[in-house]
Formats: sequence, C-alpha cells, structure tokens
Amino acid sequence: MPIVRVEMWPGRTQAQKAELARVITEAVVTIAHTTPESTIVIFEDVERENWAVAGVLASQPP
Amino acid sequence: MPIVRVEMWPGRTQAQKAELARVITEAVVTIAHTTPESTIVIFEDVERENWAVAGVLASQPP
Amino acid sequence: MPIVRVEMWPGRTQAQKAELARVITEAVVTIAHTTPESTIVIFEDVERENWAVAGVLASQPP
Amino acid sequence: MPIVRVEMWPGRTQAQKAELARVITEAVVTIAHTTPESTIVIFEDVERENWAVAGVLASQPP
Amino acid sequence: MPIVRVEMWPGRTQAQKAELARVITEAVVTIAHTTPESTIVIFEDVERENWAVAGVLASQPP
Amino acid sequence: MPIVRVEMWPGRTQAQKAELARVITEAVVTIAHTTPESTIVIFEDVERENWAVAGVLASQPP
Repeated sequence: MPIVRVEMWPGRTQAQKAELARVITEAVVTIAHTTPESTIVIFEDVERENWAVAGVLASQPP
Repeated sequence: MPIVRVEMWPGRTQAQKAELARVITEAVVTIAHTTPESTIVIFEDVERENWAVAGVLASQPP
Repeated sequence: MPIVRVEMWPGRTQAQKAELARVITEAVVTIAHTTPESTIVIFEDVERENWAVAGVLASQPP
Repeated sequence: MPIVRVEMWPGRTQAQKAELARVITEAVVTIAHTTPESTIVIFEDVERENWAVAGVLASQPP
Repeated sequence: MPIVRVEMWPGRTQAQKAELARVITEAVVTIAHTTPESTIVIFEDVERENWAVAGVLASQPP
Repeated sequence: MPIVRVEMWPGRTQAQKAELARVITEAVVTIAHTTPESTIVIFEDVERENWAVAGVLASQPP
C-alpha cells in the first residue's frame, strides 16, 4: 500500500534509481511492516529551471 | 472543483486519454454531484524506469 | 500500475466514494487496458477553507 | 518549510518562472512568516493534451 | 488553468490563507497571463510530526 | 533538494516515522549524493476509506 515519491534534479543513473528503489522499499517493509509487492516507488525528475529555493531558480546564475 | 490526477506508464494514445477524461468526468459529475466545468482531469505519464514495485524498477529485466 | 487521485471538498459518503472507485477503476481498466489489481484510487478531502478559485477561498463569504 | 507547486501549461519563459518564484516566495515569507531559505517553489509543465476540463482535453479541437 | 499547491505546517489563520490566495493568484495572473477564474490555489497543512529535514522529524526534540 | 513523500494508511507510530525518515534520508544522501540538510521527507496518512485497489475501498468488507 505505501506509495513513495522521490523528486530530484535530473542526473541520477538507472543504477542509482534501482538501488534507491530497493533500499527505500526494504526500509518501508521492515520499519512500517508492509509487503514489498504493495510498495510503489515513483521517481520524478524536476529540472533545475523548475526548482526555486529562496525565490531563485536553481538554474539562475548566482 | 474536483481535480482528478491519473498517473500511468506512457503509451496511451490521445484517443484513450480523451475517452478516459470523458468517462471519469461523467462519473464524478454523476456520482459526486459536481459540474463538468469545475472538473479537471490531469494525466501524468511516468516512465517505466521511474516506477518501482517490490523494489524493482519496471524497466529492469526480471 | 495506474494511480488515480481524486481531490474534492468533503461531504461525499462512503457509498459515493465506493461507487466512484468502482466506476473509475472500470474505466481505466477498459480504456487504458490495465488490470484491476494494479489500479489504485486515492481520495483526498480538501476543506473549502483550503481551496481558492480566483483568489478567494471557497469558505469566504461572497 | 513551505513547498509551493505550480502546475501550468507549457509556454512560460525562464524569466516568467523566475519572476513568479520571486514574488510567490516573497508572499509566503511576508504573509505566512517563513524564511526565504526554507521556501521551495516547484514548477510543473503539464501539456495541453494531458489536461482536461469538462471532460475535454485542452488539446482537442472544439 | 494553473493549479498552485501550498504545503505548510499548520498554524496559519484563515486570514493569512485568504491573503496568500489573493496575492499568489494575482501574481500568476499578472506574470503568467492566466485568468483569475481558472487559477486554483490549494493549501495543505502538514503536521510537524509528518515533516522531516535532514532525517529528523520537525516534531522531534533536538 | 530531494523531496520524498510517503503515503501510507494511518497507524504508524512517531517512532516508526522517525526511523523511516532517518533511513530514507540516509539512503538518498548516500546513493543520490545529496546533502541531509536539503533532503525533505513528508508523510501523508491516507485513511483506508480513501484508498481503493481493484475498485474496492480498503475499508469495505470483503
């Protein structure tokens, strides 16, 4: 049943996402007592030009 | 007022999305008593390589 | 695989949500060719005081 | 701490997004009393073909 | 068409949310050239005990 | 920068959420090479009566 959603800047490899999905699922199953089959992990790549902190896009020059 | 969000793997045609939007909106209007004009349906295509079940990305070979 | 999320003001009964979940799932399965077991529908009740259109909260007197 | 998410059709320039991020962050900081550094603004471009109102995709001819 | 979603810890008054909705909508309309009627702002109160930074829930004693 | 969102049925203790936040953050930092300070984990409790699989609410009797 758990749905985990990970928003990050682009740039992670498939291997990194696979490893993250594996470790996060294991953590949810172990700590929250769910089953692996019911645990979904979704990655969303958010471009730097769509992500602002302190009112400044991460793609803007400092 | 309702906002409906549909996350699926890519591959649905425009015709399928149009039909889904039509049927879902009709269901919401009829069952939840909203108006069509205030009902929004948003589709989000999520790549298989960004979707994991049981800790395994849907793009990973079995 | 599809995840459908329905945001509405509170006030729908359990029977209405059950019917919506049934009809939306059927639509997704039929039109987008998914399986029922992999189709998740999540409802989120959003209070009128947390929902604004045209800059005015739905809970504000006109 | 606040996370603000703005979903719009594509077509806004980087300058428009930068200005929106700046003004929204300023509003949140001033009105909700947060700090700029803890305020995140994320933009999501949603294609017209993925956005339906009244059961009709925004990309469909009228 | 824009949907703006603001996630914050609880504690903001209705007056603060009303003011935020008004100012954010004005910003979106002015900068992104949308109409007020099509601009939705949704607030989500997230409890401190459901919000972690650096791996520590905001409700945990330091 | 990463934002991780965990949707689960209610029932997890604060200790379980704290442990999940700690482990997930550690995984993201280690595998995706982010900093702890920029990693946010948000939990959303979704009632069984708002969560349907195969068109049936998790709160419905079988």
